[in-house]
Amino acid sequence: MEEAKDSVGAVLPQHAHFTAPLALAGGSTLPAFDLVYETYGELNAARSNAVLVCHALSGNHHVAGHYAGQPRSGGWWDNLVGPGKPLDTRKFFVVGVNNLGGCHGSTGPMTVDPASGRPWGADFPVVVVEDWVAAQARLADRLGIDAWAAVIGGSLGGMQALQWALEFPQRVRHALVIASAPKLTAQNIAFNEVARQAILTDPDFHGGHYYTHGVVPARGLRLARMIGHITYLSDDKMAEKFGRRLRQGVLQFGYGIDFEIESYLRHQGDRFAGHFDANTYLIATKALDYFDPARDHGGNLVAALARARAKFLVVSFTTDWRFAPERSREIVYGLLHNGRDVSYAEIDCSGGHDSFLLDDPHYHAVMRAYFEGIAT
Amino acid sequence: MEEAKDSVGAVLPQHAHFTAPLALAGGSTLPAFDLVYETYGELNAARSNAVLVCHALSGNHHVAGHYAGQPRSGGWWDNLVGPGKPLDTRKFFVVGVNNLGGCHGSTGPMTVDPASGRPWGADFPVVVVEDWVAAQARLADRLGIDAWAAVIGGSLGGMQALQWALEFPQRVRHALVIASAPKLTAQNIAFNEVARQAILTDPDFHGGHYYTHGVVPARGLRLARMIGHITYLSDDKMAEKFGRRLRQGVLQFGYGIDFEIESYLRHQGDRFAGHFDANTYLIATKALDYFDPARDHGGNLVAALARARAKFLVVSFTTDWRFAPERSREIVYGLLHNGRDVSYAEIDCSGGHDSFLLDDPHYHAVMRAYFEGIAT
Repeated sequence: MEEAKDSVGAVLPQHAHFTAPLALAGGSTLPAFDLVYETYGELNAARSNAVLVCHALSGNHHVAGHYAGQPRSGGWWDNLVGPGKPLDTRKFFVVGVNNLGGCHGSTGPMTVDPASGRPWGADFPVVVVEDWVAAQARLADRLGIDAWAAVIGGSLGGMQALQWALEFPQRVRHALVIASAPKLTAQNIAFNEVARQAILTDPDFHGGHYYTHGVVPARGLRLARMIGHITYLSDDKMAEKFGRRLRQGVLQFGYGIDFEIESYLRHQGDRFAGHFDANTYLIATKALDYFDPARDHGGNLVAALARARAKFLVVSFTTDWRFAPERSREIVYGLLHNGRDVSYAEIDCSGGHDSFLLDDPHYHAVMRAYFEGIAT
Repeated sequence: MEEAKDSVGAVLPQHAHFTAPLALAGGSTLPAFDLVYETYGELNAARSNAVLVCHALSGNHHVAGHYAGQPRSGGWWDNLVGPGKPLDTRKFFVVGVNNLGGCHGSTGPMTVDPASGRPWGADFPVVVVEDWVAAQARLADRLGIDAWAAVIGGSLGGMQALQWALEFPQRVRHALVIASAPKLTAQNIAFNEVARQAILTDPDFHGGHYYTHGVVPARGLRLARMIGHITYLSDDKMAEKFGRRLRQGVLQFGYGIDFEIESYLRHQGDRFAGHFDANTYLIATKALDYFDPARDHGGNLVAALARARAKFLVVSFTTDWRFAPERSREIVYGLLHNGRDVSYAEIDCSGGHDSFLLDDPHYHAVMRAYFEGIAT
């Protein structure tokens, strides 16, 4: 395979084992844990060029590049991260990490619980954004990174970037919060709840211990992903991409596939159910629902953001109805009220919430300019 | 029980049996069928004061009043229909009918298929808006109604009102199309498809013949209704009604109920799954998806609407994102291009799609004024 010259190329995941117990927000303690991560670029001598990329609901540590011999294994943000790309690996040392509770190698529901000798399953504690950031901080310690040049993430990843700036104000110079929100609305929670109910009521869920039954709650996970996909795309994008186009030219008068959009959703659902873990999905939706830094400040976001010291780039997308621009503006206003240095870009892009994963030229130009301005 | 003086009072459903075969849009023929219906008010001597009320996805013939001895059995549009109400039963003879494929008494999946001797189940043909209107026309014949003073409906019911005006232009003097659309968008279809997949993949669905297995696909129907409810309410209404209010004051760090919105959705889902038929739900979502009067006119809505002769009232609600005001305006423009007499009201109401069922004062004032202007 010929390597694109702006790709980080073949990459290898690495593992870090942590033996100091981690007290979780929910009250329980993980006695030890593993994180799987990848790095791209070189950490400079001053250790001042490290960028942490936080993943969203279904993401993982594989941000850029590909796995040797697997040409279709491109990282989920490969269009953003690489030599010469907006997050340029010739300048930055980029770290991607699979979060706690994940299903791609970090300690999570699929990991064997040392106390029981079987996979944790749904007994894995519900971990939240604060827990993820705490675990990521352990990884930063391990890598010898006192302060990140930047922490960046989209959607749920953006919440982690924001939380980093609040929890470790001295360890984040720049926080990039993309297509995110300071907390979910009732409607957001409602969509997550339907997804969870689809999984929890799947007869193959077995109380979260489906691993030992040799099945997976594929029906539920498939429905969860289908619902998710509707909210990732804008109404306009769906109209443009599928409209009312019929699969076979005529109506079928049955419950097979009539419209192309049906085929797309089923395909996305099937594919996801074949490789993602349902317990991880449950955890990640709870982390989304629970995130609310203003909760401990009587709902006052301005007060909650007062601790931040980082410079911020906040980006939203006009057609994102899952995390609408208004939600990003709440973060911007909250930071400005605290006298923080904030850049805000509202990108006119038809891609809906998923825009943050696209390489829209205006969006990437903003990202490139911002990263170019970060001193290392 | 003391009767409210603006209630139609205790009502009784009536049955009509039709023996002439009905050719359906999908190609099959119903050899005979029943319709269950209710009437309120008196048909005048000229038979010129009849109003047909068409129901939406989960509605039925019980539009107004209550059943004797069941004080909580109020009709679904009882706030609109009654003596002194906007659709005044002192002036009009109002007819509500359960559509073909329904689960409240009209011929549908729960009816015994004479050919097999068992309930039709999912073998009941997919019926569409055109079929419903054709069946309703048979009922009009039976009742001796040559022309309706008005045909009215909200959402899927509005599509029937529109179809009446197109299919029987001489039999409809006024068509009231509320919170509706000339066809669904890809996003609308996507939501319906997830709901259908929830039902179709429920292990208790048994290919639609769950009646003979002594079960119902309650999990799937429950999820379908939860998804539906999210789209019936506006984001704002959900924020106002539930926000992020916690059921027990603190986060549970588990998969029970944290937020009030979760409790509401589960309750709505459970209640619906306990009384509605899943096969009927499948049919009704297909009827929604398939409705597109412009299809036979190369997608040209103006051409499709040219046949209408009725006067129209089109009403939309600002916060309805399922059938947004833009979709109603498409109908209005299409009618105006044909020189039709159209009134249009865009009501500022926070209730989302469900607004059409509420008694918002501006909305009801518009309805009252319009009905007052109809000569009988």
